[in-house]
Amino acid sequence: MSFSHSIEITPAFHDLDLMHVVWHGNYIKYFERARCALLAKFDYDYPEMRDSGYAWPVIDLNVRYSRPITYGQIIIVTATISEWENRLKVSYRIHDKATGDVLTKGHTVQVAVDFHTNEMQFVSPDILFEKLGLPKP
Amino acid sequence: MSFSHSIEITPAFHDLDLMHVVWHGNYIKYFERARCALLAKFDYDYPEMRDSGYAWPVIDLNVRYSRPITYGQIIIVTATISEWENRLKVSYRIHDKATGDVLTKGHTVQVAVDFHTNEMQFVSPDILFEKLGLPKP
Amino acid sequence: MSFSHSIEITPAFHDLDLMHVVWHGNYIKYFERARCALLAKFDYDYPEMRDSGYAWPVIDLNVRYSRPITYGQIIIVTATISEWENRLKVSYRIHDKATGDVLTKGHTVQVAVDFHTNEMQFVSPDILFEKLGLPKP
Amino acid sequence: MSFSHSIEITPAFHDLDLMHVVWHGNYIKYFERARCALLAKFDYDYPEMRDSGYAWPVIDLNVRYSRPITYGQIIIVTATISEWENRLKVSYRIHDKATGDVLTKGHTVQVAVDFHTNEMQFVSPDILFEKLGLPKP
Repeated sequence: MSFSHSIEITPAFHDLDLMHVVWHGNYIKYFERARCALLAKFDYDYPEMRDSGYAWPVIDLNVRYSRPITYGQIIIVTATISEWENRLKVSYRIHDKATGDVLTKGHTVQVAVDFHTNEMQFVSPDILFEKLGLPKP
Repeated sequence: MSFSHSIEITPAFHDLDLMHVVWHGNYIKYFERARCALLAKFDYDYPEMRDSGYAWPVIDLNVRYSRPITYGQIIIVTATISEWENRLKVSYRIHDKATGDVLTKGHTVQVAVDFHTNEMQFVSPDILFEKLGLPKP
Repeated sequence: MSFSHSIEITPAFHDLDLMHVVWHGNYIKYFERARCALLAKFDYDYPEMRDSGYAWPVIDLNVRYSRPITYGQIIIVTATISEWENRLKVSYRIHDKATGDVLTKGHTVQVAVDFHTNEMQFVSPDILFEKLGLPKP
Repeated sequence: MSFSHSIEITPAFHDLDLMHVVWHGNYIKYFERARCALLAKFDYDYPEMRDSGYAWPVIDLNVRYSRPITYGQIIIVTATISEWENRLKVSYRIHDKATGDVLTKGHTVQVAVDFHTNEMQFVSPDILFEKLGLPKP
C-alpha cells in the first residue's frame, strides 16, 4: 500500500485571517487531516493507536510556507510516511489543484509513548511495523 | 528596550484534545499572542506593519515539543527577536510557571512583502530598524 | 434553485474535546461551511457580498445540540435559507449519514451593512433578491 | 459567593476574520473561558465535574451580537449562573472595557449526564447544589 495519501481541501471562510489568506496556524489542521486519512488507510489512526496501548504525540513540527492560500482556491494536501523505525515522520506537501504549484511543505515527527508506563519508546513498537505491512526490524 | 517579552497563559478547555493535553496546533496561537505583545512594545504589531506598507507573512515555523501542557497548568510564553537584518526571526520558549520546566521551544521567520509591488524584500525595510531602535544597516 | 444545500463532513481529530466529542463551538464552523456552500450556489458568498458593497455580519446564532458527534462519524450538514426580506436567516440541521438521526439544529441571522455608510439595512438590499432569483419586494 | 465572574480578554490576531472583526464563532471560546473561570471559583470546573461522575454537555447556545470587536479592543466577559435546579444555565455579557458599551449577550444551557448510565438527568444532581453552596432542593 502506498505510503502517501492526498486529500482535497476547500479553505473555509473562518480559516482566513485579516490579510485575506489562510492563517499560518491553520495549516497544522490541514496537515493533520491528511495524516489521519493516511494512517486510517493502515488502520492505525488515533483510535487504533490508543487501542494499541500507545499515544503518539507530535514532538517536532516544521512548516515552510512558499505561497499564500486564498479563499476559493482548492488545494491538495499530500501526507507521506517518510520514517518509521524509531519515530513516525510524516512529510507534507500542499499544492494548488488547478495549477499544480507547490504552496507549502512541512513535516511532523511523532514518537510512541506507552500508556501504562508513560515512557517514550526509542524504537517504534512492533504494532507500527505490523500495521504498515513491514517486517519487524 | 528588551528584545524579549513574556506573557502568561492559562490553557482553555477548548485548547485541549482528547489526549487531555493542549493540541499541538494550538501552540501556534500561544506563540502568536507572545509575538504580537512583543512587537506591540515596539509599536510594530499587525496594524502598524500594514500602515508601514508591508505585510510580514510567516514563511517558516518550527516547534519542538518536550513535555505536554495540561488543563490547569499555567504557562509562560517568552518571545525573543533573534534576527532582523534580512528577515524577522522570533524564537519562543514555553515554560511551566510553577516549576520553571521548559516545555516547548520554537521559532517563526517572517519576511517583509511590499503591499504595492507585492514583492518580497530580501533586506528588511528601514521601518523595522527604526521601530526596533537600531541604526539602519 | 433550491434554498437548501447539504455538505458531508468528517470531523477532524482537532475538532474533538477531551470528552471525545466534537467541541460545541466547532459546530459554528460546520454551519459556516454549509452556509458558504449554499450562498456560493447563488453566487453570493463572502467575496460577492463584499463586491456588492455590503457586509453581512451574523447578529444572532442559536444551536440546539441533541446528540454528540464522535470521531469517525460522518455527518451531513444542511443549510436552508429561511428568511430574506429584512434579514438573511439560515437554518441548519446536522444528521448522521449512516443512521439519518438528527444530531443538531440551529440558525444564524445576518443583516446587510452598507460598507460606505456603515449603516445597518432594515430591508435587505435589492442585490440579495436578484441573487436569489426573487422579484424585488 | 457571587454567581458572576468577569474576565478580561485581549482578542488575538488569529481571532479576527477578513472583515477585521472577531469571527463570530470565536465568541464561544470567550464565553467558555469566562464560564470555566466562574465554575472554578466554585471548585466545579471540568476536572471536578468529571470526578463527580457527571459530564455537563452544552445542549443550547445562543449569541446576540450587537457590535463588532476589533483588534486592540480590550473586552470584559461576564458569566453569570442564572439557572441550576434542572439544568445549568449561564448567561454572558461582553462589554468594551474602555467605554462600557455592551457588545454581545448570550447564554449556554448544560445538563448533567451520568457517566456510568449515560443518562441525562432531569434534575441537577446534589453535587451541583453542594458546590454552589445552596440547600438541596
